[in-house]
Amino acid sequence: MSQNVYDQSEFFENYMKLDRQTKGLDGAPEWPRLREMLPDLQGAQVLDLGCGFGWFSRFARSEGAARVRGIDISAKMLGKAHSMTSDDGIEYEKADLEDLTLPDNEYDVVFSSLTFHYLTNLASLVAGISKSLKHGGRLVFSVEHPLFTAPTTPNLVMVDEDTGRKAWQVDAYQREGLRTRNWFVEGVRKQHRTMSTYINLLLRCGFRLTDFVEWCPSQEELQSNPTWDIELIRPTFLLVGAVKDWSIG
Amino acid sequence: MSQNVYDQSEFFENYMKLDRQTKGLDGAPEWPRLREMLPDLQGAQVLDLGCGFGWFSRFARSEGAARVRGIDISAKMLGKAHSMTSDDGIEYEKADLEDLTLPDNEYDVVFSSLTFHYLTNLASLVAGISKSLKHGGRLVFSVEHPLFTAPTTPNLVMVDEDTGRKAWQVDAYQREGLRTRNWFVEGVRKQHRTMSTYINLLLRCGFRLTDFVEWCPSQEELQSNPTWDIELIRPTFLLVGAVKDWSIG
Repeated sequence: MSQNVYDQSEFFENYMKLDRQTKGLDGAPEWPRLREMLPDLQGAQVLDLGCGFGWFSRFARSEGAARVRGIDISAKMLGKAHSMTSDDGIEYEKADLEDLTLPDNEYDVVFSSLTFHYLTNLASLVAGISKSLKHGGRLVFSVEHPLFTAPTTPNLVMVDEDTGRKAWQVDAYQREGLRTRNWFVEGVRKQHRTMSTYINLLLRCGFRLTDFVEWCPSQEELQSNPTWDIELIRPTFLLVGAVKDWSIG
Repeated sequence: MSQNVYDQSEFFENYMKLDRQTKGLDGAPEWPRLREMLPDLQGAQVLDLGCGFGWFSRFARSEGAARVRGIDISAKMLGKAHSMTSDDGIEYEKADLEDLTLPDNEYDVVFSSLTFHYLTNLASLVAGISKSLKHGGRLVFSVEHPLFTAPTTPNLVMVDEDTGRKAWQVDAYQREGLRTRNWFVEGVRKQHRTMSTYINLLLRCGFRLTDFVEWCPSQEELQSNPTWDIELIRPTFLLVGAVKDWSIG
């Protein structure tokens, strides 16, 4: 079963103050690039995995999606999502993505923002997503970038005392698996995967890769947010788009 | 014009002693994974970019390729390649890959080993490769991995004095461009590119990505070659396979 830090009060109280929760999609700097990867949502059947407060689910409806199913493990998140809409074209549901069963050949678009790197059994979920998509359907997702998740200990920005140069220290890129981080609470469990693992999961499950972005702020964004210069050293976000090209068994 | 360190005597004398030169393909640890990406070469028209001593060109002929064209910038490398075969199904040619003009719709397979990261104008070469491939033709190549090329200064394995932990220090992953290294001689010029740049170059040029390997030694290889443990910290080689799926203008 997945860890559910979201329903811990201490985590939730802090998490809900993040820009990407208070401002929604526009509070997430990587959103414009992710949005570009989406097909026309008019009339689409959409699945939103790790929907949180439902910002994307509501966006999809505002773009004309016929129906959106938002799934999250957190009762608190879904409570907030429910409170923010009375749209009966959106169905929110509490479930663990580690053992989700999806209907075959149902969706036009599957979306997931910053969720997959929490899952241990991603291979099984990606296979299920592939089967649940119609032919030509699209998977668009973001994860924490493999360079970001690679270090086995947190806080790996080192400053050279002589030169002042900052560097991100990668000590175990090829060792996949658990990375424990402190983020609002102690012991948040993430899964490090290499770039090739993400890509090959898709290729093996009948996807054709269409979009691949290692998010980096623009010069204008850097001027408004000087602390984002760490993104030039190593990216935080990997954004991926893929089309279902063939059906797996 | 490309830098040609190969024709400097000091470089060449050392370079030709590398396992991958004295033993050929079997002296390159990543070769078995690269070989798996190749289609059946029987009757194929093959292009070998940065052919060096011609190890791959001769391999392709031994696998039944109809004709192989091997291109390299180094007269010394080609001299050695010529001396190693009398096969008139192989044509070796001195040219700079930065401004190469290729025939349209000619090749079944384009191969390149550890060459692309020396080129400044890779976008133009990849477009040319795409046009030169027949529909369904395959590009298989290796480059130095973006994590390997990212640091702006060499020798970036740091050992923590307290823990003994080794780490690769990434200081400018998102800053693409020149990286100067000392390798047998001083001032070898390489080009750092991000993962997304390599992938998007392919996608934009009509390729479908089929294979993506961040090379890592097996347990057996690590036992025979203990110093390869650095590969677990960060990969040296990125191996890519792609199929020409559609034609660019």
